[in-house]
Amino acid sequence: MSESSRRVVLAERPTGMVDESTTRIEEGPVPQPGEGEALVRVRWVSIDPTIRTWMDDAPGYLPPIQIDEVIRAGGIGEVVESRADEYRVGDLVFGMVGWQDHAIATAGAMQPLPAGVSPEVALSVLGITGLTAYFGMIDVGKVKEGDTVVVSGAAGATGSVAGQVAKIKGAGKVVGIAGGAEKCAWLVDELGFDEAIDYKSEDVARALHEKAGEIDLFFDNVGGEILDAVLANIALRGRIVLCGAISQYNSSDGRRGPANYGMLIVRRAKMEGFLILDYGARFAEAQAELGRWLSEGKVKGRQHVVEGLENAPDALNLLFTGGNTGKVIVKVS
Amino acid sequence: MSESSRRVVLAERPTGMVDESTTRIEEGPVPQPGEGEALVRVRWVSIDPTIRTWMDDAPGYLPPIQIDEVIRAGGIGEVVESRADEYRVGDLVFGMVGWQDHAIATAGAMQPLPAGVSPEVALSVLGITGLTAYFGMIDVGKVKEGDTVVVSGAAGATGSVAGQVAKIKGAGKVVGIAGGAEKCAWLVDELGFDEAIDYKSEDVARALHEKAGEIDLFFDNVGGEILDAVLANIALRGRIVLCGAISQYNSSDGRRGPANYGMLIVRRAKMEGFLILDYGARFAEAQAELGRWLSEGKVKGRQHVVEGLENAPDALNLLFTGGNTGKVIVKVS
Repeated sequence: MSESSRRVVLAERPTGMVDESTTRIEEGPVPQPGEGEALVRVRWVSIDPTIRTWMDDAPGYLPPIQIDEVIRAGGIGEVVESRADEYRVGDLVFGMVGWQDHAIATAGAMQPLPAGVSPEVALSVLGITGLTAYFGMIDVGKVKEGDTVVVSGAAGATGSVAGQVAKIKGAGKVVGIAGGAEKCAWLVDELGFDEAIDYKSEDVARALHEKAGEIDLFFDNVGGEILDAVLANIALRGRIVLCGAISQYNSSDGRRGPANYGMLIVRRAKMEGFLILDYGARFAEAQAELGRWLSEGKVKGRQHVVEGLENAPDALNLLFTGGNTGKVIVKVS
Repeated sequence: MSESSRRVVLAERPTGMVDESTTRIEEGPVPQPGEGEALVRVRWVSIDPTIRTWMDDAPGYLPPIQIDEVIRAGGIGEVVESRADEYRVGDLVFGMVGWQDHAIATAGAMQPLPAGVSPEVALSVLGITGLTAYFGMIDVGKVKEGDTVVVSGAAGATGSVAGQVAKIKGAGKVVGIAGGAEKCAWLVDELGFDEAIDYKSEDVARALHEKAGEIDLFFDNVGGEILDAVLANIALRGRIVLCGAISQYNSSDGRRGPANYGMLIVRRAKMEGFLILDYGARFAEAQAELGRWLSEGKVKGRQHVVEGLENAPDALNLLFTGGNTGKVIVKVS
C-alpha cells in the first residue's frame, strides 16, 4: 500500500471561529496496526459543537486537543486491515475516528454498526446527538405529560430529536427556537413541534411569553440571551437542562452567564448539566427505543452532509453560523 | 390615645444602596383596628436582604413595594388593643409588621411568640433566616455525611446557621466565606466551621481550591464572583443551593450571571433556587429541632441590634456593606 493518508491537526488555538490558521492538513504514510489492532479507513465524521470546546486550553470533560494533534471526532469507518479477532476486514465500525483518512482501532475502541442502520442514521438519531436528546429529555429533564417544553438549537441534530422525544412522552406543548423561517417551518410541519420561534426575526422573550407561556422544561443547547429569555418565563419549579452553550463557545471577549439566574430563586427552579458519557451502559436500551420510533415514523432525522475531509473546519463553523439543519456529517471519501 | 405613629414609606426607588431620598418618615394618628383585628405596637423589626429586592419595580415572589407604601418587613410587636378573640392585649406576636410604630393585625396574619423564646432568637435562629438555613441545607441541598460544604455570606444570619446545620448533619468539611478577619475567626472559633475564607483579603478561587478542594454542596447568599469561584471548584454532581444574590441586589449597572455556569455541564452539577415561603407547613417541626440544637449549644446565634425605627434604612445597608455579624434587628422603641 503506497497510498498516503491525510490528517487534519490543530495548528493553533482559535479565539473565535476556526479559520485557515486553526488547522493544518498533513499527509503521511498510512499508519500500520499493531498486534490486536485494526486499520480503519474513515468514511464519515460526526461534526459536533463539543469539538470546538476541545480546541480551547480550558478544563473540560475531556483533555484539550494538543497542538499538532489530530482533531478529535466521532465517526464511522471501514476495517481495511485487521490484526484483531474483534475487527473483520469489510466491517463498518464507529468510534472516535478523528479528522483523518485512516484511524487505528485499538482493542474495544470501536463497535460494529448495528445491522440495517445506515451510517447517516447511526451518526445522528442513533448516534451521540440522538442519545444526548434522549437521556437529556427523559432522565435529566424528566419530561412528563402536559409539560410546556422549550428547546433551543431546535433544528440541530440534538434539539430536533429532543423536541420529538418530548412530544412522544406526552408534553402538552413543545416550542422550538431556531434561526430562520425554513428551519422553523421544518420543526412545525415535519417534526410536529407545536410552535417555533425564529430568533433571527423575533424578540425571543416576547415570543416565548406568547407562544409558550410558563415554561416547565427547557432543553438548552445555546445559552446567552436565549437562556435569559427563558429564565424570564420559567414556571414555578421549572427545570432547565443544560446540554450546551453554543452561543458561548466562540466568544473571544469572555463568556457571559445568565443575568436572569435569580429567577431560579423567584420560581424555585433548577438548572442541571449533564454529559452523554455518563450513560454509556444504557446506550443499547435507548438505541432500541429510538430505532423503534424511527421505524414508526415518530422520530425523523435529517442530515447535512459536507463532502471532503478538507472541508471539516467549514462544516464545524456551520454549527455556529446556523448554516445547518439537522446533523452535520463530513463524508471523508 | 392622642399618641402619633411613625411609618417609614418608600419615597423613590433606589438604584443602588438606599439613601436619604429612598425613604421618608411620615407621622400620623395611630391606626384603629376594625372588627376581628388588633392594634400591634411594633417592638422589633427583622432586617433582611430581600427587603431591598422588594424596593425594585421588578417581578419577584412578592409584588414590589409601591411608592408611598410602608416598607414591608417581618418583626415582633405587642398587642395593645384587640377586637379579635385570637389576639389578647399584652401578647407578643410576630408577622409582617413593616417599618412602623403600629401595625394592624388582621385575622390569622400574626402568630403568638412561642413560650420561653426571646424576641431576638425568634427573629434569628428560629425566625425566617434560621428556617431558611434549615430547609435550604437539608431539603434543597440534601446535605449528607462527608460532604464538603461551602457557605457564602457565612457570618450573616442565614449563612451562620446554614454552616452549623451542615456540621450537625455530618458534613466532612464546612468552609465559610465572609468579609474580614473578625468574622472569619467567629466562624471557626465560635461556630465550629472547619475553615473560613476572608473574601476581602484572599483570592477566593485559590482559597477554595486550597481550603475546600472539590465542593459537593454550596449554599449561596452572595452570587457574583464568589459563585463563579465556586463553579470553578464544583465537584462531580455537585449541588448549588441558591438562597440569595446579595452582591447583585444593589447593582445599578445591570445584574451579571455566573460566567462559569458551563461548569454545571462539565461537572454534571445542578443549581437550584428556593424560597422559605414554601415551607410554612413545616415551620413548627424545624423550629422544634433548631430549638433543641440551640439548648444543646450545637447552634449559636448572634444579633446585631440597631436602635430606633429611623435607623432602619441604615440597618438595611449594613447587610450590603458587610457591617453586621449575625442577624440585624431594629429595636423600634
